[in-house]
Amino acid sequence: MSAPALHIRVDTRERGTIISRLEQNEGVSLEFVELEVGDYILPNGVAIERKSATDLILSVVDGSLWEKVDKLKQISTKVIYIVEGDIYTARFHQQALDIHRALAHMVIRENIAVLPSSDAGNSAMLVYLMGLAAHELTPAE
Amino acid sequence: MSAPALHIRVDTRERGTIISRLEQNEGVSLEFVELEVGDYILPNGVAIERKSATDLILSVVDGSLWEKVDKLKQISTKVIYIVEGDIYTARFHQQALDIHRALAHMVIRENIAVLPSSDAGNSAMLVYLMGLAAHELTPAE
Repeated sequence: MSAPALHIRVDTRERGTIISRLEQNEGVSLEFVELEVGDYILPNGVAIERKSATDLILSVVDGSLWEKVDKLKQISTKVIYIVEGDIYTARFHQQALDIHRALAHMVIRENIAVLPSSDAGNSAMLVYLMGLAAHELTPAE
Repeated sequence: MSAPALHIRVDTRERGTIISRLEQNEGVSLEFVELEVGDYILPNGVAIERKSATDLILSVVDGSLWEKVDKLKQISTKVIYIVEGDIYTARFHQQALDIHRALAHMVIRENIAVLPSSDAGNSAMLVYLMGLAAHELTPAE
């Protein structure tokens, strides 16, 4: 049984382990484009933004997260944030309330899923499997 | 400025740190009930299921996750899984693909958010802030 064909649009700034791992999956074709927002565009308009925990926290602190979220929602049917690393590390203790409030707002108000990931290889597996799941969505969903 | 009143229904099996921390927040009232599914019911029908990473993984392996998800979706407008601990630990290496596939399915197909949490105190903060965010939802959302 062969794996289903899966077409993923990838931002040109995405490189390294995650790309080589994604390419190892049978049936995957990657199209590299300069995406204005998002890092991976899966079938049926599902957009994935991949961030390190540190970058996510910094974008909460400087407020740039919400502009990005607005743009992502405009171009997609569903937005997923994959966050690599620990968002609850002690060094950001002073911003803890802000981080938690941002996560709550993203999930409840913006209907965005936030998925933890341990590293790039792990993220590749998540992108691939979410791609397969998104492929099965009907365009109306 | 006083905090807004926030009513949360809590399953009677929830105890310990998370409850004492939740009760510390001004304006929070907890109503303990035997919930058939879910651990916290926030305003406007938002349901929270709180699981340890180990329990989530076991529920993927034995398949009980999907029955729970079905029931949660029936009683709520939105379902959030708070997962305490690391779902990517090496000891579940053999189930890694199953775990990733389950996460992908939950997020893409079931529209469920999966939020990582480090511990019960952290989960309390997430429940409280998601409660405030859910409180601001209009019932139509």
